[in-house]
Amino acid sequence: MSTLFANHAEKLQAAVNACKTRESYSGWPENPSSKLHGDELPAAGKARFDAQLGKPFELEQPAEIGRLGEERSPYTRELLGISYPKVDVPQLFQAIEQAKPAWASAEPETRLGICLEILERCGDQLFENAHATMHTSGQSYVMAFAGSGANALDRGLEALAYAHKAMEDVPASGRWQRQFGRDGVADLHKQYRIMPRGVGVVICCATFPLWNAYPALCASLATGNPVVLKPHPNAVLPVALVVRTAREVLAKAGFDPNLVCLVADERDAPATQALLDEDATSIVDFTGSPRFGGWLENNCPGKLVYTETAGCNSVVLESSNDLDATARAIAQSLCQASAQMCTSVQNVHIPADGVRVGDKRVSYQEVSQAICAAVDDWLTEERRAATLCGTLFDDAVQETVDRYRELAGDRILRDSAPFAIEGFPSARTATPLVIAATEADRDWYRQEVFGPVSFLIRNDDAQHCLADATGNARDCGAITSHVYSTDEAFLEKAVDAYHGAGASVACNLTGMPINFAAAYSDYHVTGLNPAGNACLTDLAFVANRFRIVQTKYMAP
Amino acid sequence: MSTLFANHAEKLQAAVNACKTRESYSGWPENPSSKLHGDELPAAGKARFDAQLGKPFELEQPAEIGRLGEERSPYTRELLGISYPKVDVPQLFQAIEQAKPAWASAEPETRLGICLEILERCGDQLFENAHATMHTSGQSYVMAFAGSGANALDRGLEALAYAHKAMEDVPASGRWQRQFGRDGVADLHKQYRIMPRGVGVVICCATFPLWNAYPALCASLATGNPVVLKPHPNAVLPVALVVRTAREVLAKAGFDPNLVCLVADERDAPATQALLDEDATSIVDFTGSPRFGGWLENNCPGKLVYTETAGCNSVVLESSNDLDATARAIAQSLCQASAQMCTSVQNVHIPADGVRVGDKRVSYQEVSQAICAAVDDWLTEERRAATLCGTLFDDAVQETVDRYRELAGDRILRDSAPFAIEGFPSARTATPLVIAATEADRDWYRQEVFGPVSFLIRNDDAQHCLADATGNARDCGAITSHVYSTDEAFLEKAVDAYHGAGASVACNLTGMPINFAAAYSDYHVTGLNPAGNACLTDLAFVANRFRIVQTKYMAP
Repeated sequence: MSTLFANHAEKLQAAVNACKTRESYSGWPENPSSKLHGDELPAAGKARFDAQLGKPFELEQPAEIGRLGEERSPYTRELLGISYPKVDVPQLFQAIEQAKPAWASAEPETRLGICLEILERCGDQLFENAHATMHTSGQSYVMAFAGSGANALDRGLEALAYAHKAMEDVPASGRWQRQFGRDGVADLHKQYRIMPRGVGVVICCATFPLWNAYPALCASLATGNPVVLKPHPNAVLPVALVVRTAREVLAKAGFDPNLVCLVADERDAPATQALLDEDATSIVDFTGSPRFGGWLENNCPGKLVYTETAGCNSVVLESSNDLDATARAIAQSLCQASAQMCTSVQNVHIPADGVRVGDKRVSYQEVSQAICAAVDDWLTEERRAATLCGTLFDDAVQETVDRYRELAGDRILRDSAPFAIEGFPSARTATPLVIAATEADRDWYRQEVFGPVSFLIRNDDAQHCLADATGNARDCGAITSHVYSTDEAFLEKAVDAYHGAGASVACNLTGMPINFAAAYSDYHVTGLNPAGNACLTDLAFVANRFRIVQTKYMAP
Repeated sequence: MSTLFANHAEKLQAAVNACKTRESYSGWPENPSSKLHGDELPAAGKARFDAQLGKPFELEQPAEIGRLGEERSPYTRELLGISYPKVDVPQLFQAIEQAKPAWASAEPETRLGICLEILERCGDQLFENAHATMHTSGQSYVMAFAGSGANALDRGLEALAYAHKAMEDVPASGRWQRQFGRDGVADLHKQYRIMPRGVGVVICCATFPLWNAYPALCASLATGNPVVLKPHPNAVLPVALVVRTAREVLAKAGFDPNLVCLVADERDAPATQALLDEDATSIVDFTGSPRFGGWLENNCPGKLVYTETAGCNSVVLESSNDLDATARAIAQSLCQASAQMCTSVQNVHIPADGVRVGDKRVSYQEVSQAICAAVDDWLTEERRAATLCGTLFDDAVQETVDRYRELAGDRILRDSAPFAIEGFPSARTATPLVIAATEADRDWYRQEVFGPVSFLIRNDDAQHCLADATGNARDCGAITSHVYSTDEAFLEKAVDAYHGAGASVACNLTGMPINFAAAYSDYHVTGLNPAGNACLTDLAFVANRFRIVQTKYMAP
């Protein structure tokens, strides 16, 4: 057994077990508190980030033909001033070609061991990564530490658990004996070998750069494929840190570091097409816009394409025993990470005749007010507001908010406004904009409106709420969907309707961040609606990333 | 547990075990001998086939808008005179739509039980199927009984074993508890549900109509997808028998029989495009020509496409301790089913300076003579020749033989000729045509030449043999590849070279039909070269045919 595999076998087994029981598990700490980590580690992480600002990012990769970089902090609005290699893609792929055979020949456990070690080493730089994520993706420190740290690493480990299961399903050898007619017994020794598909290209998004990067990297690399990571131009640093770590681990283990490479680019000179043009690119993992994701799904014949894009996540609010708790749960989703999460709620469907609460019926207006008040409540304390909302990663998000403010006019139920973040007077921030809508406004809400913009949609009745929400999930995609109802029959109908639309659904979630997607437990993205064509992670996410070749030997 | 599942659970478990150990297993009898079956069963099967001739095939399917059928027996050259429903495809798909929900909602074990029962009932009609296969695909009775009977059914069962494993990997439920900040413990009950992708269309080939039909049917149906089988116009009857049986089993189990439908067509009015045009068609399984297979791989965006096409299967003959046994093994492959099998050898690479046998070097000429003599030897007895070779399924195969006879001229090492089959004076038959070739003739042999045409290729030396053979596998595809060598170092190099070309390889097989592909043990088709994009069967063949949706409920 490879040493690295042995070192991490227990953690891998815990992940495999959690995938089976679907219970709560995490391999890394989610809380950045000094009470847990002491003062030194957090300070060292910040120092490393600070020291990187204004400097070239050290990454010795082949095919460097210059430097690039245009990251700007949503907190300071200043350029980070970090430069990354500008890469000649065909030349890089020649170098990757050299790295392939030894990696393909390595035992699955050797590759898994190295992937586990990469995750472990990335886990050592969670504080540095948190600052890197804050100042690129705009997340708050706490979110950047947990959501882009432990929660993302867990998803990488989850992918390794599935890769392990899928590869373990292929025995290394077998013996086959049978009689053919009068020719005696044919006695064959057979060997089975896992073969990679080619190069995996991982296209990362701006707001959660590592969320799908870890699972894609791990799924492709563990099954034998070199991986090229292509970060979003405004969120390179978190990805570059992972690439550098991966290269160090690979080299230390005696493999070619070019098995994991970074191809950064700038908005005006994107590198994606050059990566897709390479024949060796056999696998594409994409996180980003539905438009480009859809294009990839339809225009990469012969390549495996896995996408997570976006949809219009909904809440159907039929009835509740505790309207305050429900409003509070919904409001938290409208605030969290300024609704720049793939799991953020956007469309809240409320029956025109109101919501049954206990034995009363509460009007649409009162429910709207409760949700808006709950939003305000989350934002009362300045510090909590900053931690919950973070910043807007890009000017375009603020422009979206502004556009909808203008469109909505007197239909604004709760207006958006900047809020202060201590220590960052220039931070780009916006509290949730909440808009009253009806089905006549379908053009507004039947798409992902990226950022803190939500719609409280007054549908004719609960049936119409459900029909609207599930129709939108089917046609426009959904990653999370929520139903609040105390009526078992309605819940059952709602679950069936969402499932029929290819969407998963959560019922009556309160007292927790409803945006939370749990690795090992939640099958994230169904692949059955336009919000993505794959699940991250299930067996299908990994089983096709490798192939099997065999050898039969006749026993002499 | 569903009754049907319980009835067949032992057989399914045996298949799962065999997939793990890769040992020899078969769920059905391969030998049609009356010593095993008595006289009655074989006679009844033949009687049922005879009674079908000249009559409409009874199949009550919706959307029938007429009848069609143009099958002609390669044994009698007479039309079978059997008519099948001519189907209005959009109308049929409307009916299939109705059948979907109940099937999607059924427990995986219920679906597996029904699929197992379908295979079992198809196993009851192996004699009838053997005659149907003889008089459509042109196989010999023995081959039709085994290769299109037990061996094909086993592949269906193998697909069910993998479908079972993949679906079993998804737990039905889980409980997830964790603390978020000071909000107390969130306690979620989760349910996971397997969801089908859509309709699976299975496009069958002419010469082994059920070989890939069973695995595709089973893989899609067990995972919840309705299946439409589209047989080759000249090999409808074997497929129609399966469809009728499947529909009977489904109906008896209380499901809509339209979950399995037949769409037959004629050469002049193919139905495939209409099937692909249906949005509901989400999965396409194709067996047939590399040209159409390649087109499907590249032109069905958004649909899952699994192909097995063809390549130019090779032998590299470097050395042997028993040239007679080696020649006999190769010769059998050249004869078997008139080399109309996907595993038939076509290109035999022989070093120009001959083959080392023991401590002698045997010249190219002597080796060629040995192979041709071995072919003659297989054909000495009229009855054995008929059993081994069967007929040519189509005039086009005879035309191919004729064309190569003309092209080869004095390079013919062994000429092709018709041979007699007792009781069928009109049978379309041809013994193997063996042609001497060099690398100058690459245009001849760098493609599948379908039928009993083979090339004994004189390469400069063993290295060149290997380079030519593996280059062809990489560029033109290969389903089986053979190396004969007593030199361990050469074998190792050959194995690596074939694997590098994305091909599996068999070493020194003698004393058995080397065309034989063993369900549960051989991963048939690698998916890594142009002879197909999928393996039948591995986890990847099934894991993507379904998706997972989930429900989370917060414990009150």
